[in-house]
Amino acid sequence: MKPIYVLNGPNLNMLGLREPAIYGSETLKDVEARCLARASELGFAIDFRQTNIEGELVSWIHEARTKASGIALNAGAYTHTSIALHDALKAADVPAVEVHLSNVHKREAFRHHSFIAPAVNGVICGLGINSYELAISALASIITANKKG
Amino acid sequence: MKPIYVLNGPNLNMLGLREPAIYGSETLKDVEARCLARASELGFAIDFRQTNIEGELVSWIHEARTKASGIALNAGAYTHTSIALHDALKAADVPAVEVHLSNVHKREAFRHHSFIAPAVNGVICGLGINSYELAISALASIITANKKG
Amino acid sequence: MKPIYVLNGPNLNMLGLREPAIYGSETLKDVEARCLARASELGFAIDFRQTNIEGELVSWIHEARTKASGIALNAGAYTHTSIALHDALKAADVPAVEVHLSNVHKREAFRHHSFIAPAVNGVICGLGINSYELAISALASIITANKKG
Amino acid sequence: MKPIYVLNGPNLNMLGLREPAIYGSETLKDVEARCLARASELGFAIDFRQTNIEGELVSWIHEARTKASGIALNAGAYTHTSIALHDALKAADVPAVEVHLSNVHKREAFRHHSFIAPAVNGVICGLGINSYELAISALASIITANKKG
Amino acid sequence: MKPIYVLNGPNLNMLGLREPAIYGSETLKDVEARCLARASELGFAIDFRQTNIEGELVSWIHEARTKASGIALNAGAYTHTSIALHDALKAADVPAVEVHLSNVHKREAFRHHSFIAPAVNGVICGLGINSYELAISALASIITANKKG
Amino acid sequence: MKPIYVLNGPNLNMLGLREPAIYGSETLKDVEARCLARASELGFAIDFRQTNIEGELVSWIHEARTKASGIALNAGAYTHTSIALHDALKAADVPAVEVHLSNVHKREAFRHHSFIAPAVNGVICGLGINSYELAISALASIITANKKG
Amino acid sequence: MKPIYVLNGPNLNMLGLREPAIYGSETLKDVEARCLARASELGFAIDFRQTNIEGELVSWIHEARTKASGIALNAGAYTHTSIALHDALKAADVPAVEVHLSNVHKREAFRHHSFIAPAVNGVICGLGINSYELAISALASIITANKKG
Amino acid sequence: MKPIYVLNGPNLNMLGLREPAIYGSETLKDVEARCLARASELGFAIDFRQTNIEGELVSWIHEARTKASGIALNAGAYTHTSIALHDALKAADVPAVEVHLSNVHKREAFRHHSFIAPAVNGVICGLGINSYELAISALASIITANKKG
Amino acid sequence: MKPIYVLNGPNLNMLGLREPAIYGSETLKDVEARCLARASELGFAIDFRQTNIEGELVSWIHEARTKASGIALNAGAYTHTSIALHDALKAADVPAVEVHLSNVHKREAFRHHSFIAPAVNGVICGLGINSYELAISALASIITANKKG
Amino acid sequence: MKPIYVLNGPNLNMLGLREPAIYGSETLKDVEARCLARASELGFAIDFRQTNIEGELVSWIHEARTKASGIALNAGAYTHTSIALHDALKAADVPAVEVHLSNVHKREAFRHHSFIAPAVNGVICGLGINSYELAISALASIITANKKG
Amino acid sequence: MKPIYVLNGPNLNMLGLREPAIYGSETLKDVEARCLARASELGFAIDFRQTNIEGELVSWIHEARTKASGIALNAGAYTHTSIALHDALKAADVPAVEVHLSNVHKREAFRHHSFIAPAVNGVICGLGINSYELAISALASIITANKKG
Amino acid sequence: MKPIYVLNGPNLNMLGLREPAIYGSETLKDVEARCLARASELGFAIDFRQTNIEGELVSWIHEARTKASGIALNAGAYTHTSIALHDALKAADVPAVEVHLSNVHKREAFRHHSFIAPAVNGVICGLGINSYELAISALASIITANKKG
Repeated sequence: MKPIYVLNGPNLNMLGLREPAIYGSETLKDVEARCLARASELGFAIDFRQTNIEGELVSWIHEARTKASGIALNAGAYTHTSIALHDALKAADVPAVEVHLSNVHKREAFRHHSFIAPAVNGVICGLGINSYELAISALASIITANKKG
Repeated sequence: MKPIYVLNGPNLNMLGLREPAIYGSETLKDVEARCLARASELGFAIDFRQTNIEGELVSWIHEARTKASGIALNAGAYTHTSIALHDALKAADVPAVEVHLSNVHKREAFRHHSFIAPAVNGVICGLGINSYELAISALASIITANKKG
Repeated sequence: MKPIYVLNGPNLNMLGLREPAIYGSETLKDVEARCLARASELGFAIDFRQTNIEGELVSWIHEARTKASGIALNAGAYTHTSIALHDALKAADVPAVEVHLSNVHKREAFRHHSFIAPAVNGVICGLGINSYELAISALASIITANKKG
Repeated sequence: MKPIYVLNGPNLNMLGLREPAIYGSETLKDVEARCLARASELGFAIDFRQTNIEGELVSWIHEARTKASGIALNAGAYTHTSIALHDALKAADVPAVEVHLSNVHKREAFRHHSFIAPAVNGVICGLGINSYELAISALASIITANKKG
Repeated sequence: MKPIYVLNGPNLNMLGLREPAIYGSETLKDVEARCLARASELGFAIDFRQTNIEGELVSWIHEARTKASGIALNAGAYTHTSIALHDALKAADVPAVEVHLSNVHKREAFRHHSFIAPAVNGVICGLGINSYELAISALASIITANKKG
Repeated sequence: MKPIYVLNGPNLNMLGLREPAIYGSETLKDVEARCLARASELGFAIDFRQTNIEGELVSWIHEARTKASGIALNAGAYTHTSIALHDALKAADVPAVEVHLSNVHKREAFRHHSFIAPAVNGVICGLGINSYELAISALASIITANKKG
Repeated sequence: MKPIYVLNGPNLNMLGLREPAIYGSETLKDVEARCLARASELGFAIDFRQTNIEGELVSWIHEARTKASGIALNAGAYTHTSIALHDALKAADVPAVEVHLSNVHKREAFRHHSFIAPAVNGVICGLGINSYELAISALASIITANKKG
Repeated sequence: MKPIYVLNGPNLNMLGLREPAIYGSETLKDVEARCLARASELGFAIDFRQTNIEGELVSWIHEARTKASGIALNAGAYTHTSIALHDALKAADVPAVEVHLSNVHKREAFRHHSFIAPAVNGVICGLGINSYELAISALASIITANKKG
Repeated sequence: MKPIYVLNGPNLNMLGLREPAIYGSETLKDVEARCLARASELGFAIDFRQTNIEGELVSWIHEARTKASGIALNAGAYTHTSIALHDALKAADVPAVEVHLSNVHKREAFRHHSFIAPAVNGVICGLGINSYELAISALASIITANKKG
Repeated sequence: MKPIYVLNGPNLNMLGLREPAIYGSETLKDVEARCLARASELGFAIDFRQTNIEGELVSWIHEARTKASGIALNAGAYTHTSIALHDALKAADVPAVEVHLSNVHKREAFRHHSFIAPAVNGVICGLGINSYELAISALASIITANKKG
Repeated sequence: MKPIYVLNGPNLNMLGLREPAIYGSETLKDVEARCLARASELGFAIDFRQTNIEGELVSWIHEARTKASGIALNAGAYTHTSIALHDALKAADVPAVEVHLSNVHKREAFRHHSFIAPAVNGVICGLGINSYELAISALASIITANKKG
Repeated sequence: MKPIYVLNGPNLNMLGLREPAIYGSETLKDVEARCLARASELGFAIDFRQTNIEGELVSWIHEARTKASGIALNAGAYTHTSIALHDALKAADVPAVEVHLSNVHKREAFRHHSFIAPAVNGVICGLGINSYELAISALASIITANKKG
């Protein structure tokens, strides 16, 4: 069984340090641990990565086309500016879910639009680390259904 | 333990009949059954309702203030036009999650904006009936955390 | 033969009283009488209703799915604000024509956009009560053609 | 002498409970009591109502055409979205004043536009319950002037 | 009795050939035949023309001022771009109805606005050739009413 | 007790002469007289002024910081264009009410936005000279409440 | 001495007939007579033309490059929609003045923008037939100054 | 005979010094001399003034109501930002023409809109000092016609 | 083998004369000669035309449906304003390429949008007369591929 | 050596009193003292002024043309609304720097645009009184370089 | 002779795999082969590269300043979002052509604007791999002409 | 004492080569030398870097959180498009100043908006290399004040 890619974009390496009123005090390591736990319960492996470089996210999504069974993507600020990620997700052609820790709709207007949303199966935001866990659950359901389907 | 209110807005009574290419062939009864199952697993009751009248949704959300432990709200088309629901959710002051069956970001531009999103904890969309189940999971986590917290 | 539903939205109960310079002095009763006459000529029955509540219009349109052969809808002010009616018409899946007494394009800018128009077969506006009569003729043609087709 | 209708829209039933930092701790009962007191001083009766349903507000405004000497309307969130209320006020053809407890211009951009304002005599906002009292005073002046005039 | 002018703008000469999924397989000759038949039933003659040149449409509308009893105008793409036609219709000062075969509101955004609509009595769209027939009926009613009135 | 400043902006010196269909035939002297009468009833003095110069209004508002108990401000056309007045009101830090004789929402679109509204306690418009009297009543209530509070 | 071209666009042939409240009761013949008189006083000939066809105006402006000493252009509705006329005027490279009988800024918003204005020397509007006479005076001044200069 | 007021707004005192590529090398004194000459030819006196203060322009326009037979107004940059001048011109109720030395439509977008244009009889721009002379001619025509009329 | 239509819109007859800094000093004759040469090399004939009239371009495109193997269209200014040309190209249903001599994206904002681009195979701009030659090459490739395909 | 003009616009006289959370507790006197100190270090005199009147700022900038070696301008709220100041700066033709105490980009959207910025050499904002000192340093560098240059 | 740089941006490495309905089944290797062939015919070498990283494209374009005779750039999604590429092209100061395989004007609105277009000589889109070949031909012509010129 | 990071974004490596009319002829080496000199005077070290990759800038800003006492950031074109840099600056939580060599407000509209400005202390632009020096002075003041404060 191919792993689920859990891909994190710019500034997520600062989690726990960065604006804790918005993002909480847990670190990206904590997120990884909880993703791993949830995936294991569901019988999936994960491949958990972070980069600040848009083009690297693009390449990882391409890689997912053959190496991953699904993608949970928190593209951070690139969510709102990157058509390249939109195109990469269309090219990857595997189940994908957009994830955000914070409720972007409560924040600045420039965080309300997502270029990624129309290129994924679904979106989960505002639920803290639980957003990641739910995304993994959702991907597991889709992957399982596709296999059966 | 107070139940989770699962509230459905206009046209959701037509589920299964209405545009199956977008909404699938399962009915609102099926949604209710799956919500009930998921809630039970998590130790929660649900109160599942549907109405086509905006003002009735408003009133149910008010009622939730004292009668419910959380709200999963699929406000259908009112998502995009109702400031009254925004205000009701702020007045209700219980954990709430916005839910959509379809990925609204893949559809007409007038479905891309939500008046409800800035008044809830989080948003889950595009994952079919699983959107409801995940919302119930998320609410269960929040309610449990609040109790402890 | 199922009747044609002639559905009227908010403020149309005030016809004859309300701003006669725009809407004329005939009442909704007069509209009903002329619709009935036209429909009879064409061999159709009508079911003529009015409500000020958006959600009730939604429900009547749902009802039309199985009970009506077509819908002539003058949604009044909801024309310009209701995505719920748009969705209801798509769910109803019967021939439908949008009707307006006045020429909305000569009036305030907020009356120039219709959420209903993209969900119906056609639009007739500006021709007074004749708009209704022509809508019934149009529906009769479509219904007849569909039967043959 | 016909009463002044004091009509309240969605979420105003939650007054005192709802976001007290914005709306204060007095309830809608308190508002009614102060309206009654002010109206009595001026020799007027009031008919004080609240509903969460847009269409019901529309119907009450129609009713005011023959049953009321004036309307003080706090349409809450429908202020910003309802063309139906605009049309109803034009159809009612009695003196009317738009009222808001809070100063809507200090709040979210979506509260800055009113569909009701161009269909009433005047607008009073931001003065708490006093907004209602001043509206009743204003209506009393207009009604008295019209009688004389 | 002066004839009704049925004026057709750019690309309508291609009817039957042009995008049959949108416009159907009937030709402009067929439209003319059905207009003639309907007009005859109602006791009217028609003068049916087509041009690809905006300025020629303008001139025909001027001519209608004294030579026609009414105008049914399908200005095609000029509907959305021509203020000159708007002005011509105001100058013509005879009853006029805007006609479209397709439901322009279901198509590209640039077809949703009409410069012609505010300069005519009414608009009929989306009903195929029946749009023309209904426009002739509507014009016949207006012309007859004006004579009596 | 410090007086209430009643400050009037550009063109209000023309009252009675200027567009009487909109502004009525009473002059600014009449306004002053009625303000004085109302203030006296409530136990307040007024300081009533008019200027056509934006910067002079700014300076008077600054002066009010220490010399006035409140401000009733009809800034005329500067309402819609002056950020300087917005800033002055914030700097003045005394109770303030925006006043308009006419209902600006019934007029040109460029009169619908106020830079002043977010910097005052409340807004009263459309009630003729009564707008001023009500503003004085409102200020009296706020000033009295603040003293007690 | 080459003549001044006085070029008139769509609907100006209807002058005197068309909306006399806006355009007055004088005809295009009257305009021509007054232009001729004014030009004669200033020692210039005129060549006065009208067409409803945009492309014909374009061609006349091209012709002016070598045949005319200047252009007074009332392009009517094409003023607001024609980039082709803008380009033609730049290509013509002779002094040109844009002319309007009515004050376009008092009319519909779609008449407030001119594609022609940035391609001419100056604009004169709102002064009835005098707009034409003043344009001829202005052109005479420019042509004379250019000769000297 | 009352004089024509020729009123100049901000920065026009810098004429001849300021950006000569746009405004030429003649000074405001030169403009005054040419206005005087033209007015004399036509049998009119002028009162020629300049100020950098918006409110002073407003007051001069008020003064024109009884002291002037017409107004030629070059409001400079206030043209594009001043609603107060718009209101003053409506209040003045004498013939008025908006004047610009340069062709504002060839310059920055923020110079394309005029708040003054809808409040005057006509607009003349882009013709250098001749714009003023033509405005005086136009005013003379209007004043003379009004007297006769 | 049917010829390739090379169709030129408004003002292109002025090539060589018109704004040589933008368009160069070669004439439309030169363009035709180079198109002919390139087409000959590729074994194609051309039919090279120019008109200033939008409707004539529309008609030529219709004609191309049966008479041409492809269309190279430089619609000049109509590129940015003509929905009629968009519709004509869809109706023509032969390979088509939009051509511009200049790089429209370096020029005024109103030249950045093309109504034609979504109705053709491809766009070539900014390469001077070479734009035409490349368009003919591109059309030759498409036509040849279609034959084989 | 001519002095540097340090010009302050509306509400800056309230510094120290006005919204200290944004503007700090130092007064305009303190700003003047620090400007004087910095200028002295650099061998420059300053002329430090404040006014609430836009037209007075315009006149001071004109005066700077011959009397000052440079301008540091904090136009306060007029920054965002005054094209007159833009024009005055262009007319003044001496080195100029726009200054703000607060970081305007962190505040309301209507403070994000500056009409002054495109008419000055540079902009310094958000650095408290240091913004003024840095502006004087910058002006000193430019003035010195110009002399050498 | 320096080579022509053929630079490819994000997702173009997926060509042949990615959305074949839009991009065809040929791979980037195929594109390179055809570019090489065309360049050889014209006596040019090529340097063909692809990257998903915006900053790397920027650096390659800088490199082209001294190492390449021209640039054919398909920046993929960065076309629509990258001002950095715009600036790099201006800095590179060698002939450049923007290339797209698909006709971007037929696709989502966010693909209609190019930040690159105003910084290159010309644009070629919608012609599949032929777009590249034509770009190489165009560059060859420009380079050759520059040498001669 | 930690150094001040002076971070430079895309295309700044081309300084001196790139568009010297806008950016001058000095190179980035020259900028570094002058920054070093100014910092030394003020008792600070600097760490001066340049990259064309957005994600690398993000990482350097993260690094500054613990390694730098402040950041002077010239993000070049990423200023106008990068929300990721905005977020990085908020996460870095050290004093920061946005710097530009040119006055971006005199250039294309797409350079007028900065995503970085609301995340830094202040902005300095348009003063050439002096912008950098002033930024270092400003940072030195803030760092020193923070230490004391």
